[in-house]
Amino acid sequence: MTKRRQFLAALVAKAGAENVLTDPGDCLPYGLDNSGMQGLPVAVVFATSAAQVSHIVHLCRDHQIAIVPRGRGSGTSGGAVVLGDAIVLSSERMNRILEINRADRYCRVEPGVLNGDLQSALARHGFFWPPDPSSADYCTVGGNLAYNSAGPRAVKYGTPRENTLGLSVVIGNGNILECGVRTTKGVVGYDLTRLFVGSEGTLGFITAATLRITPLAKEKRSLRALYTSIEAATQAVTRIMGQPDTPCALEFMDATCVRLLREANPDLLPARTRAILIIDLDGSPAAVDAATDRVARYAKHEDLLRLNTARNQAESQQLWSARKALSPRLREIAPGKLNEDVVVPVSRLPDLIHGLDALAQRHALCIANFGHAGNGNIHVNLLYDPADASQSAAATRCLDDVLKLVLSLGGTLSGEHGVGTQKRDFIHRELGTDVLAAMRDIKYCLDPDNIMNPGKMLPENPA
Amino acid sequence: MTKRRQFLAALVAKAGAENVLTDPGDCLPYGLDNSGMQGLPVAVVFATSAAQVSHIVHLCRDHQIAIVPRGRGSGTSGGAVVLGDAIVLSSERMNRILEINRADRYCRVEPGVLNGDLQSALARHGFFWPPDPSSADYCTVGGNLAYNSAGPRAVKYGTPRENTLGLSVVIGNGNILECGVRTTKGVVGYDLTRLFVGSEGTLGFITAATLRITPLAKEKRSLRALYTSIEAATQAVTRIMGQPDTPCALEFMDATCVRLLREANPDLLPARTRAILIIDLDGSPAAVDAATDRVARYAKHEDLLRLNTARNQAESQQLWSARKALSPRLREIAPGKLNEDVVVPVSRLPDLIHGLDALAQRHALCIANFGHAGNGNIHVNLLYDPADASQSAAATRCLDDVLKLVLSLGGTLSGEHGVGTQKRDFIHRELGTDVLAAMRDIKYCLDPDNIMNPGKMLPENPA
Repeated sequence: MTKRRQFLAALVAKAGAENVLTDPGDCLPYGLDNSGMQGLPVAVVFATSAAQVSHIVHLCRDHQIAIVPRGRGSGTSGGAVVLGDAIVLSSERMNRILEINRADRYCRVEPGVLNGDLQSALARHGFFWPPDPSSADYCTVGGNLAYNSAGPRAVKYGTPRENTLGLSVVIGNGNILECGVRTTKGVVGYDLTRLFVGSEGTLGFITAATLRITPLAKEKRSLRALYTSIEAATQAVTRIMGQPDTPCALEFMDATCVRLLREANPDLLPARTRAILIIDLDGSPAAVDAATDRVARYAKHEDLLRLNTARNQAESQQLWSARKALSPRLREIAPGKLNEDVVVPVSRLPDLIHGLDALAQRHALCIANFGHAGNGNIHVNLLYDPADASQSAAATRCLDDVLKLVLSLGGTLSGEHGVGTQKRDFIHRELGTDVLAAMRDIKYCLDPDNIMNPGKMLPENPA
Repeated sequence: MTKRRQFLAALVAKAGAENVLTDPGDCLPYGLDNSGMQGLPVAVVFATSAAQVSHIVHLCRDHQIAIVPRGRGSGTSGGAVVLGDAIVLSSERMNRILEINRADRYCRVEPGVLNGDLQSALARHGFFWPPDPSSADYCTVGGNLAYNSAGPRAVKYGTPRENTLGLSVVIGNGNILECGVRTTKGVVGYDLTRLFVGSEGTLGFITAATLRITPLAKEKRSLRALYTSIEAATQAVTRIMGQPDTPCALEFMDATCVRLLREANPDLLPARTRAILIIDLDGSPAAVDAATDRVARYAKHEDLLRLNTARNQAESQQLWSARKALSPRLREIAPGKLNEDVVVPVSRLPDLIHGLDALAQRHALCIANFGHAGNGNIHVNLLYDPADASQSAAATRCLDDVLKLVLSLGGTLSGEHGVGTQKRDFIHRELGTDVLAAMRDIKYCLDPDNIMNPGKMLPENPA
């Protein structure tokens, strides 16, 4: 028996035959994510329990086979892509909601629960879990935790980091760690919970999570403000974030987004629109009406073209329609897209948007910018035709300039998409040598054989 | 020249003579904290910059002399007490507020800034930093970060963990790490920021912090509910925490606290009072009045004796007077006090309080319980006379039972006071062998010579 066949036989024995796929045709769909990259796993294993995962990790250590933890592969940064000899460890069969505890404001879930399914179950109890990535209907809570994936609501309610109380994790040495607490306070020992949140599967595999849940607000209002200048929109963002009525969403679209949307549907927006803000507010009925009026005043500017308020869900969907139409439209017009996910301090948004416009001109590319303005988190989309070699080269050069611009503004290279394989070679610019060395040391002490998602997040060790 | 004198000469050279104390009379006050323990440091060094601290760490590594990081020594768990051969590294001269950035909702501070001074400076801009320990007037932000110290406001606004964006830390190997971001989102690399928050100086010395700040609410209302039973109070807590109007303080006092207060001042509270809740709500004027009415309804119970609402600051101070009188009163009646700081899920508060009453009876001790009920964080005070050997022994046995009770209820041993030397020998009960091993591994990789606050937090390595 070859070593590979020995490994697969042991894997079936440890994981259960019903939990292992080895046929390449079955395995191939598990080797990709939404980055467009793909690899072929040696096998796909469906995790069923912390004990089973621990057995698998020990086996993979013995055989020096890597493990790629996987939710549903909706990530865009290549974190779930198979590189080299690796099995995929999928959470899709660990998809139970274990407990919803309203009085104690927590729930416990397995990692494969879909974000949207969890939100539906919580809503029946009058609660929600704040992280709301746009892929909520088909991404897993485990994946959200691995990337610290957020979404529009983070501006008021925080990211997974602020909404996770405890984790069960099988780390790279095979140990099962029960980290954190079931309470909103707890200071016993180091904060391992948040060390694992955002670690992209490079330290261990999450087998259960205790999540902090929040009561649903009674009412929600939406505002949409159309401006004839970027300055007007970004100044409004700064004013709104400087006062106590924090919106539960504060979304931005730039002039390029407006132009692309109008090309498809000229009636969607007035011709003079150069920037859009969509602002959601929630709270009790009395509070939210007063807050909406106050925020509407902060949104005022001489370049304000139109301000619409939605008082019910149908009107709100109408106001959000331009934002929802955007991603399909971007996919339609450009076969190639470098989708960055940068963050700058809110007050630097005007500098970021103007800087990006200048880079678009310099590199003769179309750059469409939109995103979570209240967090300063902008999705920067470099659109190009990958069949055109000079455009591809221009996009690569432009990306380099975009990242320089972001760091020069005191920002960070990723707000919620993560590093994965796509940004791995850039993060040293942000973190520096000593911070990277400390991260590598921590990786080594929890995963001594480097079997947990190797080649992701941390750059290659310098020779 | 002896080795010790060589070390001191080098220390003066590295730190600057004006920043070093060596006279034992000068050094002694820096060797204690609010735990009652005390040690004599080899020297006291005043930190002035990250570079200076890095030089000192390298020197201490060379000489195998420990470093005890110190704010103002207001901690109660012995974390800042000198054990063995150690210098104290004090943050008290690094006390500048470096930047207050209202538009971007952050401030940058040196570690020695007093919490109260920071709050005053922020209030002038209409902002605050949520952590509000009762020692706010004389504790440092660096100390708050080291212990993840919170206070009443945490129930709505979170602890330092949720309110810190980035840190500069000199770790035990001498490297200077710039961790985190200036934005509310950021997912590049492992979350070192929160690994340092709550690490009690055992990984490094914080030289600067970027803190997330929050706009001050326009209005605040206080409610005080007096109950004739514990059940009525704890059921009200559960109902209040299950709905969206989260209070900005939800404080509890038990029947023993009431009795001790009434012994000193019979007019302070009605004789039948067995439990007290104090509830603060904040928000915009319209919102806070409506929320106060709603929460008042949730506080209703057939055992509700009296419900008072304060509509201005003077009335609010009146409602809080019993709570403020409590700590001095406890100090007055019992020379010995074991001051625990446990947390249980909110729904288990009745079981905790009844269990503590049973333990008080069994061990013939007085136990007074009060604290931050909205977080399930109760300060359990075992009162005894240390001159009485049998009482002291009973207190020690009782403490053991208290910790067992807390863990049996799914709780944690400390919510905000930290582990230090006082709870170090107990945390293995909560964390287990594998979690402690992972924490030790992380400590070793950032502080390979174990010079950063050794003997604190983590139990001795098993032989």
